[in-house]
Amino acid sequence: MSEAAPVLTGPVEVVGTGLLGTSIGLACRRAGIEVLLTDVASEHLRTASGLGAGRPRRAGDRPQLVVVAVPPDHLGAEIVRALEDGDAVVTDVGSVKTGPLASVTGRPGAERYVGSHPMAGSERSGPLAASAALFDGRPWAVTPHQGSDPGAVAVVDALVALCGAVPVRLSPEEHDRAVARTSHVPHLLSSLVAARLAEAPEGHLALTGQGVRDVTRVAAGDPVLYGQIVTANSEAVLALLGEVRTQLDALIDAVSTADRGSLEALLREGVDGTRAIPGKHGGPVRPMRSVFVSVPDHPGELARLFADAGASEVNIEDVHIDHDPGRPVGLVELLVDETRAEHLLASLESRGWVTHR
Amino acid sequence: MSEAAPVLTGPVEVVGTGLLGTSIGLACRRAGIEVLLTDVASEHLRTASGLGAGRPRRAGDRPQLVVVAVPPDHLGAEIVRALEDGDAVVTDVGSVKTGPLASVTGRPGAERYVGSHPMAGSERSGPLAASAALFDGRPWAVTPHQGSDPGAVAVVDALVALCGAVPVRLSPEEHDRAVARTSHVPHLLSSLVAARLAEAPEGHLALTGQGVRDVTRVAAGDPVLYGQIVTANSEAVLALLGEVRTQLDALIDAVSTADRGSLEALLREGVDGTRAIPGKHGGPVRPMRSVFVSVPDHPGELARLFADAGASEVNIEDVHIDHDPGRPVGLVELLVDETRAEHLLASLESRGWVTHR
Repeated sequence: MSEAAPVLTGPVEVVGTGLLGTSIGLACRRAGIEVLLTDVASEHLRTASGLGAGRPRRAGDRPQLVVVAVPPDHLGAEIVRALEDGDAVVTDVGSVKTGPLASVTGRPGAERYVGSHPMAGSERSGPLAASAALFDGRPWAVTPHQGSDPGAVAVVDALVALCGAVPVRLSPEEHDRAVARTSHVPHLLSSLVAARLAEAPEGHLALTGQGVRDVTRVAAGDPVLYGQIVTANSEAVLALLGEVRTQLDALIDAVSTADRGSLEALLREGVDGTRAIPGKHGGPVRPMRSVFVSVPDHPGELARLFADAGASEVNIEDVHIDHDPGRPVGLVELLVDETRAEHLLASLESRGWVTHR
Repeated sequence: MSEAAPVLTGPVEVVGTGLLGTSIGLACRRAGIEVLLTDVASEHLRTASGLGAGRPRRAGDRPQLVVVAVPPDHLGAEIVRALEDGDAVVTDVGSVKTGPLASVTGRPGAERYVGSHPMAGSERSGPLAASAALFDGRPWAVTPHQGSDPGAVAVVDALVALCGAVPVRLSPEEHDRAVARTSHVPHLLSSLVAARLAEAPEGHLALTGQGVRDVTRVAAGDPVLYGQIVTANSEAVLALLGEVRTQLDALIDAVSTADRGSLEALLREGVDGTRAIPGKHGGPVRPMRSVFVSVPDHPGELARLFADAGASEVNIEDVHIDHDPGRPVGLVELLVDETRAEHLLASLESRGWVTHR
C-alpha cells in the first residue's frame, strides 16, 4: 500500500461539492492538503467551504489532482475539461467507468486520467451529508485504462489511502460488469418487487415481514440518479437482465408445470449465490449464528442489551431489529461467530433476557 | 380481542413438532394448558417433550383444538385426519391457505376447520430452535372459510392471543394473494438476483455492498421448503410473476432504447412501493432519519454506542452494521424518528463518536 504523503502533496481540486466531493475535500483537509472547490451551484460551494472542505478555486490555482464528482450525465465533459485545463492528474468518482473513459480516449492528456469509484453512496445527498470518515474501510475501485500513466495511478491510489478506503484494482470494463451484477441489476429487480407492493389491495400489506423489507430497501433510492447510472452502464446491465429474463421464464415454467426438481434447482442457485458473497472482513465466510432476544421498545433497552452482550465479550457482527406491528416489543437478532453463540445466549439469559432458542 | 382463558381450555394437540409446532406447545404450556404431541419422527417428539412442550398423545385423549404444523405437502391429509378423528376444532399453520381448505371442503366436520398462518418463520428449523416467545408481537393470519363455525374461529383467535401474536383476519384466497406479493414473489426474485452472484467472475464480488446483501438475504432459505410453498400457491404466484415479467420487458426496453422517462417511471413505482410498507408499529409511517456512526469492531464498542444513545433518550427503530471488507472499523446506521436525529447526533458527538453528517 502506498504512503500518501510523498505521492499526493496537493493541491487537490474537487469538481462538484455533493456528498462524495465534499467528503473527499474534508478527508484531504484532515490530512493537511490544500483543497480547491468548484461547483456550478454556488450554494453547494459556499456550504462545502463553510464546512471546511476547502476554498473556492481561483484563477492561477494549479492543482496536482482533480477529482470530478458530478452526476453521471456530466462526467465525460467535466473530465475532458479538467484534462485540457492543465497538467493535473484527473480522476472521477462515478458509478460507471467505461463511459467517462470513452470521452477521453484519444485526447491529449488521456494518460493523466485514472477512473475510480468509492463504494460509499448513501440515500442522503448534498454537502451537508458529507463526512471525512465516509470512506473509512469501504472498497474503492481504481480503474486505470491501458494508457494510464503509472505515476497518475499512484496519485489516485494515494487519495484512496488518504481517505481510509480499501483500493480494489479492476479494469474499467471489469468494473462496469461487476457493479452491474452487484449493484445495478439488484437495484432494478428490487424496484420491480417493490412496485408490486404499491399495487397491493387494502389490508394485504399487514402480512409484510422482514424479508420483503430487506429485498426492497434499495428501491427507495432516487429514480433520476439511478436512471442515469443504469443507462450509463446499459450494455452490462442488459446482458444480466437478459439472463434474469431467461431464468424468470424458466421459473414461471417450473411453477406452472409444478416441476419441483427445476424449481428447487433454481432456488438452490440462489443459495449458492448468497454463499459466494465475501465475508464481512474480506476473508472466507466464518460460520455465523443468529441469537434472538425479545426487547421492550423503550429508549435504553437496546443499550442495556448491548451492554450485557458487551460484558459477555462476544463480538456482534450484525444486528436486525424486527418490530411487531402492534405491540411494544421488538425481536432483536444478533449475528455472532457460531462458536460464541451458546456463551452469549447463556450470558444474556443469566441477566434476565428472554432469548429464543 | 378475546380473552384466552374462557374460550381455549385445552387440551391442545400439536401435530408436527418442528419449530412452529413446538413453539406453540411451549406457549400453551406456559399458559397452563395441557398439550398432546404427535409426530411421525419419534426423535422430534422426544425432543419436544423433553423441552416441556407437552406429552405424546395417547389413545383416549380428546383434544379441544388440533394444530396441524407439518410441511406443506402433508397439510391437507393431516387436517382431514384430525377432523375425522373426533370433534375438535382444527387449525394449521401452513404458509398457503386455499390448498388445505380445498382438501376439507364438503367433508364432514369442515365447519370445525379454521386455517391460520403465523408470520414467524426463521432460517432455523426443528424443535431445538423453538421458543414460547417466537410469536411475540408477530402478525398471525386467521383465515376462516365461509362455512367456518364462529365458535371454532373464536378458539383459534384465542390460540393466537395466548401466543402473544397480533391476529390479522383475511379470507383464505386473500391470504394467499397477499403472501404471494409480500413473501413468495420477493423470495423468488431475490433468488434470481442471488443466482447471478454465483456466476460472478473472480474478483467482481469485492465490490459487494450492503444493498445486494439485503436484496439476497432471503434467498439463503431452504430450497425444498420454498419449492413446496411456491407450488402450493402457484396461481397467485404466477399472476404476480406474469406482472413482473411484463415490467421486466418494459425495463429492458427502456434501458436498451435509453428511454429515461420510462426508466424513471419504473423506478418511481418502486419508490412508491417502499412507501406503502406499513410502519413498524402498524400505524402510518413516521418520517425516519438515519444517523451514521463509525464504530471500532471490538467487543464492547457497540455496547458503548448503545449506552450513549440510550443516555440521550432517543428510541432506536432499527440498526444496520456495514462492516468494511478489510479494516477493523464498522459503519453503524441508527434509524430514529426524524425529529430526534439532530439531538442524537449532537449527543453522540459530545461523547466523542465520529458521526457522518
